[in-house]
Amino acid sequence: MPFSWFRRRRLVLDAPRLRPRRERKPGVAADLAAIAPDLRPFLGLSASVELSAFEQLSGLVADAPSYSAKESIGQAAANALGRHRRLVAELRRFDGDPEVELREHLPRVAELDAVSAGHDWVERVLSAHLCGALLEDFFAELAQGVDAGGIKDLPAIFAVDPADRHALQSILKEHIDGDHRLAARLAMWGRRLVGDALLLTRSGLRLTGDIDADDAHTAALYAEIVAAHTRRMDALGLTA
Amino acid sequence: MPFSWFRRRRLVLDAPRLRPRRERKPGVAADLAAIAPDLRPFLGLSASVELSAFEQLSGLVADAPSYSAKESIGQAAANALGRHRRLVAELRRFDGDPEVELREHLPRVAELDAVSAGHDWVERVLSAHLCGALLEDFFAELAQGVDAGGIKDLPAIFAVDPADRHALQSILKEHIDGDHRLAARLAMWGRRLVGDALLLTRSGLRLTGDIDADDAHTAALYAEIVAAHTRRMDALGLTA
Repeated sequence: MPFSWFRRRRLVLDAPRLRPRRERKPGVAADLAAIAPDLRPFLGLSASVELSAFEQLSGLVADAPSYSAKESIGQAAANALGRHRRLVAELRRFDGDPEVELREHLPRVAELDAVSAGHDWVERVLSAHLCGALLEDFFAELAQGVDAGGIKDLPAIFAVDPADRHALQSILKEHIDGDHRLAARLAMWGRRLVGDALLLTRSGLRLTGDIDADDAHTAALYAEIVAAHTRRMDALGLTA
Repeated sequence: MPFSWFRRRRLVLDAPRLRPRRERKPGVAADLAAIAPDLRPFLGLSASVELSAFEQLSGLVADAPSYSAKESIGQAAANALGRHRRLVAELRRFDGDPEVELREHLPRVAELDAVSAGHDWVERVLSAHLCGALLEDFFAELAQGVDAGGIKDLPAIFAVDPADRHALQSILKEHIDGDHRLAARLAMWGRRLVGDALLLTRSGLRLTGDIDADDAHTAALYAEIVAAHTRRMDALGLTA
Protein backbone atom coordinates (compact mmCIF):
# COMPACT_ATOMS: atom_id res chain seq x y z
CA MET A 1 0.00 0.00 0.00
CA PRO A 2 1.48 3.35 -0.91
CA PHE A 3 2.57 5.80 1.72
CA SER A 4 -0.05 8.40 2.52
CA TRP A 5 0.09 11.64 4.40
CA PHE A 6 -3.62 12.00 4.21
CA ARG A 7 -4.90 8.59 5.10
CA ARG A 8 -4.55 9.39 8.76
CA ARG A 9 -6.84 12.35 8.44
CA ARG A 10 -9.33 10.72 6.13
CA LEU A 11 -9.85 14.06 4.50
CA VAL A 12 -11.48 14.27 1.11
CA LEU A 13 -10.85 17.78 -0.06
CA ASP A 14 -12.15 17.51 -3.58
CA ALA A 15 -15.49 16.25 -4.74
CA PRO A 16 -15.23 13.36 -7.19
CA ARG A 17 -15.25 14.51 -10.76
CA LEU A 18 -14.89 12.97 -14.14
CA ARG A 19 -11.47 12.91 -15.64
CA PRO A 20 -11.23 13.39 -19.37
CA ARG A 21 -8.79 11.11 -21.10
CA ARG A 22 -5.52 12.82 -21.64
CA GLU A 23 -2.93 12.61 -24.27
CA ARG A 24 0.07 11.04 -22.67
CA LYS A 25 3.16 13.12 -23.41
CA PRO A 26 6.43 11.28 -23.83
CA GLY A 27 8.50 11.58 -20.70
CA VAL A 28 5.64 12.66 -18.50
CA ALA A 29 4.91 10.35 -15.61
CA ALA A 30 1.52 8.69 -15.97
CA ASP A 31 0.78 9.43 -12.33
CA LEU A 32 1.27 13.16 -12.73
CA ALA A 33 -0.82 13.35 -15.88
CA ALA A 34 -3.62 11.55 -14.03
CA ILE A 35 -3.78 14.01 -11.14
CA ALA A 36 -2.64 17.24 -12.80
CA PRO A 37 -5.30 19.94 -13.11
CA ASP A 38 -6.07 21.88 -16.25
CA LEU A 39 -3.75 24.69 -17.15
CA ARG A 40 -5.86 27.60 -15.91
CA PRO A 41 -6.56 26.32 -12.40
CA PHE A 42 -2.91 25.31 -12.20
CA LEU A 43 -1.82 28.82 -13.11
CA GLY A 44 -4.44 30.35 -10.82
CA LEU A 45 -3.37 28.42 -7.74
CA SER A 46 0.35 28.72 -8.33
CA ALA A 47 0.07 32.45 -9.09
CA SER A 48 -1.89 32.90 -5.85
CA VAL A 49 0.79 31.05 -3.91
CA GLU A 50 3.57 33.17 -5.41
CA LEU A 51 1.68 36.36 -4.61
CA SER A 52 1.33 35.20 -1.04
CA ALA A 53 5.05 34.33 -0.96
CA PHE A 54 5.77 37.89 -2.03
CA GLU A 55 3.53 39.28 0.71
CA GLN A 56 5.09 37.12 3.39
CA LEU A 57 8.67 37.71 2.37
CA SER A 58 8.28 41.45 1.93
CA GLY A 59 6.64 41.59 5.37
CA LEU A 60 9.83 40.16 6.85
CA VAL A 61 12.07 42.95 5.55
CA ALA A 62 11.15 45.63 8.09
CA ASP A 63 12.10 43.58 11.16
CA ALA A 64 15.15 41.90 9.67
CA PRO A 65 18.04 42.21 12.14
CA SER A 66 20.68 43.30 9.64
CA TYR A 67 20.84 45.13 6.36
CA SER A 68 22.16 42.06 4.56
CA ALA A 69 19.11 40.11 5.76
CA LYS A 70 16.83 42.93 4.55
CA GLU A 71 18.56 42.87 1.22
CA SER A 72 18.38 39.16 0.57
CA ILE A 73 14.81 38.76 1.84
CA GLY A 74 13.76 41.77 -0.26
CA GLN A 75 15.34 40.17 -3.29
CA ALA A 76 13.60 36.86 -2.58
CA ALA A 77 10.30 38.77 -2.31
CA ALA A 78 10.88 40.54 -5.61
CA ASN A 79 11.69 37.21 -7.27
CA ALA A 80 8.47 35.67 -5.93
CA LEU A 81 6.57 38.62 -7.41
CA GLY A 82 8.41 38.03 -10.68
CA ARG A 83 7.23 34.40 -10.76
CA HIS A 84 3.72 35.55 -9.91
CA ARG A 85 3.76 38.00 -12.78
CA ARG A 86 4.98 35.38 -15.24
CA LEU A 87 2.19 33.03 -14.18
CA VAL A 88 -0.42 35.77 -14.48
CA ALA A 89 0.93 36.71 -17.90
CA GLU A 90 0.43 33.08 -19.01
CA LEU A 91 -3.02 33.06 -17.45
CA ARG A 92 -3.95 36.12 -19.51
CA ARG A 93 -2.47 34.57 -22.62
CA PHE A 94 -4.90 31.68 -22.17
CA ASP A 95 -7.83 34.06 -21.72
CA GLY A 96 -7.90 33.72 -17.97
CA ASP A 97 -9.01 36.79 -16.03
CA PRO A 98 -6.67 36.95 -13.03
CA GLU A 99 -9.31 38.87 -11.06
CA VAL A 100 -11.61 35.82 -11.39
CA GLU A 101 -9.06 33.01 -11.29
CA LEU A 102 -7.18 34.30 -8.29
CA ARG A 103 -10.29 35.08 -6.31
CA GLU A 104 -11.02 31.37 -6.45
CA HIS A 105 -7.69 30.36 -4.94
CA LEU A 106 -6.63 33.22 -2.72
CA PRO A 107 -8.94 32.34 0.22
CA ARG A 108 -7.39 28.88 0.47
CA VAL A 109 -3.92 30.37 0.28
CA ALA A 110 -4.88 32.96 2.89
CA GLU A 111 -5.90 30.10 5.17
CA LEU A 112 -2.41 28.65 4.98
CA ASP A 113 -0.96 32.12 5.54
CA ALA A 114 -3.08 32.47 8.67
CA VAL A 115 -2.09 29.14 10.23
CA SER A 116 1.55 29.56 9.23
CA ALA A 117 1.80 33.18 10.39
CA GLY A 118 4.17 32.37 13.25
CA HIS A 119 4.51 33.97 16.65
CA ASP A 120 7.67 35.92 15.98
CA TRP A 121 9.99 36.94 13.19
CA VAL A 122 12.08 33.73 13.14
CA GLU A 123 8.99 31.53 12.97
CA ARG A 124 7.72 33.62 10.08
CA VAL A 125 11.05 33.23 8.28
CA LEU A 126 10.82 29.47 8.79
CA SER A 127 7.26 29.48 7.42
CA ALA A 128 8.29 31.44 4.34
CA HIS A 129 11.29 29.17 3.80
CA LEU A 130 9.60 25.79 4.32
CA CYS A 131 6.14 26.47 2.89
CA GLY A 132 7.54 28.47 -0.02
CA ALA A 133 10.02 25.78 -1.00
CA LEU A 134 7.57 22.91 -0.52
CA LEU A 135 4.91 24.59 -2.64
CA GLU A 136 7.37 25.54 -5.37
CA ASP A 137 8.68 21.95 -5.43
CA PHE A 138 5.11 20.77 -5.70
CA PHE A 139 4.26 23.07 -8.61
CA ALA A 140 7.52 22.31 -10.42
CA GLU A 141 6.76 18.58 -10.21
CA LEU A 142 3.08 18.83 -11.01
CA ALA A 143 3.76 21.15 -13.95
CA GLN A 144 5.31 18.18 -15.72
CA GLY A 145 1.89 16.56 -15.85
CA VAL A 146 -0.07 19.67 -16.88
CA ASP A 147 -1.06 20.06 -20.49
CA ALA A 148 0.79 23.35 -20.89
CA GLY A 149 -0.77 24.23 -24.24
CA GLY A 150 2.36 25.74 -25.71
CA ILE A 151 3.98 27.30 -22.65
CA LYS A 152 7.58 26.48 -23.33
CA ASP A 153 8.91 25.32 -19.99
CA LEU A 154 6.23 25.56 -17.34
CA PRO A 155 8.21 23.76 -14.59
CA ALA A 156 11.10 26.19 -15.06
CA ILE A 157 8.97 29.09 -13.80
CA PHE A 158 9.23 27.52 -10.35
CA ALA A 159 13.00 27.15 -10.46
CA VAL A 160 13.77 29.47 -7.56
CA ASP A 161 17.14 31.22 -7.52
CA PRO A 162 19.24 29.04 -5.17
CA ALA A 163 20.57 32.26 -3.64
CA ASP A 164 17.09 33.02 -2.29
CA ARG A 165 16.76 29.63 -0.58
CA HIS A 166 20.29 29.84 0.68
CA ALA A 167 19.75 33.32 2.13
CA LEU A 168 16.74 32.25 4.20
CA GLN A 169 18.57 29.12 5.30
CA SER A 170 21.60 31.12 6.46
CA ILE A 171 19.46 33.57 8.39
CA LEU A 172 17.67 30.71 10.12
CA LYS A 173 20.88 28.84 10.87
CA GLU A 174 22.41 31.94 12.42
CA HIS A 175 19.50 32.11 14.83
CA ILE A 176 19.31 28.40 15.52
CA ASP A 177 22.97 27.53 16.00
CA GLY A 178 23.72 27.12 19.66
CA ASP A 179 20.17 27.87 20.79
CA HIS A 180 18.71 24.48 21.67
CA ARG A 181 15.44 25.86 22.91
CA LEU A 182 14.82 27.74 19.70
CA ALA A 183 15.82 24.68 17.69
CA ALA A 184 13.26 22.56 19.56
CA ARG A 185 10.54 25.17 19.08
CA LEU A 186 11.30 25.61 15.38
CA ALA A 187 11.47 21.85 14.81
CA MET A 188 7.94 21.56 16.18
CA TRP A 189 6.86 24.54 14.10
CA GLY A 190 8.38 23.02 10.97
CA ARG A 191 6.57 19.73 11.55
CA ARG A 192 3.27 21.57 11.82
CA LEU A 193 3.93 23.67 8.73
CA VAL A 194 4.50 20.70 6.48
CA GLY A 195 1.04 19.31 7.24
CA ASP A 196 -0.63 22.64 6.54
CA ALA A 197 1.30 23.19 3.32
CA LEU A 198 0.51 19.68 2.10
CA LEU A 199 -3.18 20.29 2.70
CA LEU A 200 -3.03 23.25 0.33
CA THR A 201 -1.26 21.19 -2.34
CA ARG A 202 -4.08 18.69 -2.12
CA SER A 203 -6.49 21.35 -3.38
CA GLY A 204 -4.34 21.75 -6.49
CA LEU A 205 -4.80 18.14 -7.63
CA ARG A 206 -7.47 16.50 -9.72
CA LEU A 207 -8.57 13.77 -7.35
CA THR A 208 -11.36 11.24 -7.45
CA GLY A 209 -12.12 11.18 -3.76
CA ASP A 210 -11.29 7.46 -3.70
CA ILE A 211 -8.32 7.59 -1.37
CA ASP A 212 -6.76 4.32 -2.46
CA ALA A 213 -6.97 5.22 -6.14
CA ASP A 214 -5.72 8.74 -5.51
CA ASP A 215 -2.87 7.60 -3.32
CA ALA A 216 -1.64 5.35 -6.09
CA HIS A 217 -1.13 8.43 -8.23
CA THR A 218 0.06 10.90 -5.61
CA ALA A 219 2.41 8.68 -3.61
CA ALA A 220 5.53 9.30 -5.68
CA LEU A 221 4.90 13.04 -5.85
CA TYR A 222 4.39 13.40 -2.10
CA ALA A 223 7.29 11.11 -1.26
CA GLU A 224 9.52 13.41 -3.28
CA ILE A 225 8.38 16.75 -1.90
CA VAL A 226 8.33 15.47 1.68
CA ALA A 227 11.88 14.14 1.24
CA ALA A 228 13.00 17.57 0.01
CA HIS A 229 11.29 19.17 3.01
CA THR A 230 13.10 16.76 5.32
CA ARG A 231 16.42 17.68 3.74
CA ARG A 232 15.65 21.36 4.36
CA MET A 233 14.89 20.61 8.01
CA ASP A 234 18.13 18.62 8.27
CA ALA A 235 20.10 21.46 6.73
CA LEU A 236 18.81 23.69 9.52
CA GLY A 237 19.70 21.13 12.18
CA LEU A 238 16.00 20.56 12.90
CA THR A 239 14.44 17.13 13.38
CA ALA A 240 11.73 16.69 10.78
CA MET B 1 11.92 87.19 3.00
CA PRO B 2 11.75 83.77 1.43
CA PHE B 3 8.90 81.43 2.11
CA SER B 4 9.66 78.95 4.88
CA TRP B 5 7.92 75.81 6.00
CA PHE B 6 10.13 75.58 8.98
CA ARG B 7 10.25 79.06 10.34
CA ARG B 8 6.98 78.50 12.14
CA ARG B 9 8.40 75.58 14.05
CA ARG B 10 11.76 77.13 14.72
CA LEU B 11 13.32 73.75 14.46
CA VAL B 12 17.00 73.39 13.87
CA LEU B 13 17.49 69.79 12.91
CA ASP B 14 21.14 69.90 12.02
CA ALA B 15 24.02 71.21 14.04
CA PRO B 16 25.98 73.95 12.30
CA ARG B 17 28.87 72.61 10.35
CA LEU B 18 31.47 73.95 8.03
CA ARG B 19 30.80 73.86 4.35
CA PRO B 20 33.74 73.12 2.10
CA ARG B 21 33.87 75.17 -1.04
CA ARG B 22 32.44 73.26 -3.93
CA GLU B 23 33.22 73.20 -7.56
CA ARG B 24 30.24 74.77 -9.25
CA LYS B 25 29.03 72.52 -12.06
CA PRO B 26 27.62 74.21 -15.12
CA GLY B 27 23.86 74.06 -15.09
CA VAL B 28 23.65 73.24 -11.41
CA ALA B 29 21.76 75.74 -9.33
CA ALA B 30 24.01 77.47 -6.83
CA ASP B 31 21.40 77.00 -4.13
CA LEU B 32 21.35 73.24 -4.53
CA ALA B 33 25.12 72.93 -4.55
CA ALA B 34 25.22 74.94 -1.33
CA ILE B 35 22.85 72.67 0.58
CA ALA B 36 23.49 69.31 -1.08
CA PRO B 37 25.14 66.70 1.11
CA ASP B 38 28.10 64.58 0.11
CA LEU B 39 27.45 61.64 -2.13
CA ARG B 40 27.52 58.90 0.49
CA PRO B 41 25.07 60.42 2.96
CA PHE B 42 22.87 61.31 -0.02
CA LEU B 43 22.90 57.71 -1.21
CA GLY B 44 22.43 56.42 2.34
CA LEU B 45 19.33 58.49 3.06
CA SER B 46 17.72 58.04 -0.33
CA ALA B 47 18.39 54.28 -0.28
CA SER B 48 16.80 54.11 3.17
CA VAL B 49 13.75 55.98 1.93
CA GLU B 50 13.34 53.67 -1.06
CA LEU B 51 13.66 50.60 1.15
CA SER B 52 10.95 52.00 3.35
CA ALA B 53 8.80 52.75 0.28
CA PHE B 54 9.18 49.11 -0.70
CA GLU B 55 8.13 47.97 2.77
CA GLN B 56 5.10 50.24 2.85
CA LEU B 57 3.90 49.47 -0.65
CA SER B 58 4.37 45.73 -0.33
CA GLY B 59 2.45 45.84 2.95
CA LEU B 60 -0.53 47.27 1.07
CA VAL B 61 -0.80 44.33 -1.33
CA ALA B 62 -2.46 41.84 1.03
CA ASP B 63 -5.48 44.04 1.83
CA ALA B 64 -5.92 45.53 -1.63
CA PRO B 65 -9.58 45.27 -2.62
CA SER B 66 -9.03 43.95 -6.14
CA TYR B 67 -6.49 41.92 -7.99
CA SER B 68 -5.62 44.80 -10.29
CA ALA B 69 -4.84 46.93 -7.22
CA LYS B 70 -2.66 44.13 -5.82
CA GLU B 71 -0.87 43.90 -9.13
CA SER B 72 -0.11 47.57 -9.57
CA ILE B 73 0.87 48.16 -5.95
CA GLY B 74 3.08 45.07 -6.06
CA GLN B 75 4.76 46.42 -9.16
CA ALA B 76 5.26 49.84 -7.54
CA ALA B 77 6.82 48.06 -4.54
CA ALA B 78 9.17 46.06 -6.75
CA ASN B 79 10.20 49.25 -8.56
CA ALA B 80 10.95 50.98 -5.25
CA LEU B 81 13.15 48.02 -4.32
CA GLY B 82 14.83 48.33 -7.70
CA ARG B 83 15.68 51.98 -7.00
CA HIS B 84 16.90 51.02 -3.56
CA ARG B 85 19.19 48.39 -5.05
CA ARG B 86 20.61 50.81 -7.60
CA LEU B 87 21.37 53.31 -4.85
CA VAL B 88 23.01 50.65 -2.69
CA ALA B 89 25.05 49.45 -5.67
CA GLU B 90 26.36 53.01 -6.10
CA LEU B 91 27.02 53.25 -2.38
CA ARG B 92 29.12 50.10 -2.56
CA ARG B 93 30.92 51.39 -5.63
CA PHE B 94 32.00 54.39 -3.56
CA ASP B 95 33.21 52.14 -0.74
CA GLY B 96 30.15 52.70 1.41
CA ASP B 97 29.08 49.81 3.60
CA PRO B 98 25.29 49.77 3.38
CA GLU B 99 25.09 48.07 6.77
CA VAL B 100 26.75 51.15 8.28
CA GLU B 101 25.33 53.88 6.06
CA LEU B 102 21.74 52.73 6.26
CA ARG B 103 21.84 52.16 10.00
CA GLU B 104 22.48 55.89 10.28
CA HIS B 105 19.40 56.89 8.31
CA LEU B 106 16.88 54.13 8.88
CA PRO B 107 15.79 55.27 12.36
CA ARG B 108 14.81 58.70 11.00
CA VAL B 109 12.97 57.08 8.13
CA ALA B 110 11.27 54.68 10.54
CA GLU B 111 10.05 57.72 12.48
CA LEU B 112 8.30 59.04 9.39
CA ASP B 113 6.89 55.57 8.74
CA ALA B 114 5.50 55.49 12.25
CA VAL B 115 3.76 58.87 12.11
CA SER B 116 2.52 58.27 8.57
CA ALA B 117 1.31 54.73 9.23
CA GLY B 118 -2.36 55.62 8.84
CA HIS B 119 -5.41 54.23 10.56
CA ASP B 120 -6.69 52.14 7.68
CA TRP B 121 -5.74 50.87 4.28
CA VAL B 122 -6.76 54.00 2.33
CA GLU B 123 -4.81 56.29 4.63
CA ARG B 124 -1.79 54.06 4.20
CA VAL B 125 -2.15 54.23 0.42
CA LEU B 126 -2.32 58.01 0.64
CA SER B 127 0.81 58.04 2.82
CA ALA B 128 2.71 55.85 0.37
CA HIS B 129 1.55 57.99 -2.55
CA LEU B 130 2.18 61.44 -1.08
CA CYS B 131 5.29 60.79 1.01
CA GLY B 132 6.83 58.57 -1.63
CA ALA B 133 6.34 61.11 -4.40
CA LEU B 134 7.42 64.08 -2.29
CA LEU B 135 10.61 62.37 -1.19
CA GLU B 136 11.44 61.16 -4.67
CA ASP B 137 10.87 64.69 -6.02
CA PHE B 138 13.15 65.96 -3.29
CA PHE B 139 15.94 63.53 -4.08
CA ALA B 140 15.64 64.06 -7.84
CA GLU B 141 16.01 67.83 -7.31
CA LEU B 142 18.73 67.64 -4.71
CA ALA B 143 20.69 65.10 -6.77
CA GLN B 144 21.40 67.92 -9.22
CA GLY B 145 23.47 69.63 -6.56
CA VAL B 146 25.33 66.54 -5.35
CA ASP B 147 28.85 65.95 -6.52
CA ALA B 148 28.02 62.58 -8.06
CA GLY B 149 31.61 61.54 -8.60
CA GLY B 150 31.04 59.85 -11.91
CA ILE B 151 27.56 58.42 -11.44
CA LYS B 152 26.12 59.08 -14.85
CA ASP B 153 22.66 60.41 -14.15
CA LEU B 154 21.96 60.43 -10.44
CA PRO B 155 18.65 62.33 -10.64
CA ALA B 156 17.31 59.77 -13.15
CA ILE B 157 17.38 57.04 -10.50
CA PHE B 158 14.44 58.81 -8.89
CA ALA B 159 12.42 59.04 -12.08
CA VAL B 160 9.52 56.89 -10.94
CA ASP B 161 7.53 55.03 -13.59
CA PRO B 162 4.48 57.28 -14.14
CA ALA B 163 2.35 54.10 -14.20
CA ASP B 164 3.18 53.56 -10.51
CA ARG B 165 2.07 57.05 -9.51
CA HIS B 166 -0.98 56.80 -11.69
CA ALA B 167 -1.99 53.44 -10.21
CA LEU B 168 -1.96 54.75 -6.64
CA GLN B 169 -3.79 57.88 -7.73
CA SER B 170 -6.53 55.86 -9.45
CA ILE B 171 -6.99 53.60 -6.44
CA LEU B 172 -7.32 56.63 -4.19
CA LYS B 173 -9.69 58.44 -6.54
CA GLU B 174 -11.94 55.39 -6.72
CA HIS B 175 -12.28 55.48 -2.96
CA ILE B 176 -12.62 59.24 -2.66
CA ASP B 177 -15.05 60.00 -5.47
CA GLY B 178 -18.48 60.64 -4.07
CA ASP B 179 -17.43 60.08 -0.47
CA HIS B 180 -17.21 63.57 1.02
CA ARG B 181 -16.47 62.36 4.51
CA LEU B 182 -13.53 60.30 3.34
CA ALA B 183 -12.33 63.22 1.19
CA ALA B 184 -12.35 65.50 4.22
CA ARG B 185 -10.52 62.97 6.37
CA LEU B 186 -7.90 62.27 3.70
CA ALA B 187 -7.40 65.98 3.01
CA MET B 188 -6.55 66.46 6.66
CA TRP B 189 -4.32 63.40 6.59
CA GLY B 190 -2.53 64.67 3.49
CA ARG B 191 -1.88 68.04 5.09
CA ARG B 192 -0.32 66.31 8.08
CA LEU B 193 1.80 64.03 5.94
CA VAL B 194 3.44 66.83 4.03
CA GLY B 195 4.79 68.38 7.22
CA ASP B 196 6.20 65.07 8.41
CA ALA B 197 7.75 64.25 5.06
CA LEU B 198 9.33 67.72 4.81
CA LEU B 199 10.89 67.26 8.21
CA LEU B 200 12.65 64.17 6.96
CA THR B 201 13.93 65.98 3.87
CA ARG B 202 15.43 68.58 6.17
CA SER B 203 17.75 65.94 7.63
CA GLY B 204 19.09 65.27 4.14
CA LEU B 205 20.40 68.80 3.66
CA ARG B 206 23.67 70.39 4.58
CA LEU B 207 22.41 73.29 6.67
CA THR B 208 24.15 75.90 8.76
CA GLY B 209 21.52 76.20 11.47
CA ASP B 210 21.13 79.89 10.57
CA ILE B 211 17.54 79.81 9.42
CA ASP B 212 17.66 82.96 7.32
CA ALA B 213 20.78 81.84 5.52
CA ASP B 214 19.46 78.34 5.04
CA ASP B 215 16.08 79.51 3.82
CA ALA B 216 17.75 81.55 1.14
CA HIS B 217 19.13 78.34 -0.30
CA THR B 218 16.23 76.00 0.33
CA ALA B 219 13.32 78.26 -0.64
CA ALA B 220 13.27 77.40 -4.33
CA LEU B 221 13.65 73.68 -3.67
CA TYR B 222 10.82 73.59 -1.14
CA ALA B 223 8.57 75.81 -3.20
CA GLU B 224 8.91 73.33 -6.03
CA ILE B 225 8.30 70.12 -4.13
CA VAL B 226 5.42 71.62 -2.17
CA ALA B 227 3.83 72.79 -5.42
CA ALA B 228 4.10 69.26 -6.81
CA HIS B 229 2.53 67.92 -3.63
CA THR B 230 -0.33 70.40 -3.98
CA ARG B 231 -0.91 69.26 -7.55
CA ARG B 232 -1.12 65.66 -6.34
CA MET B 233 -3.68 66.65 -3.72
CA ASP B 234 -5.65 68.56 -6.37
CA ALA B 235 -5.58 65.56 -8.69
CA LEU B 236 -7.24 63.56 -5.92
CA GLY B 237 -9.82 66.25 -5.32
CA LEU B 238 -8.34 66.99 -1.90
CA THR B 239 -7.76 70.47 -0.54
CA ALA B 240 -4.08 70.86 0.21
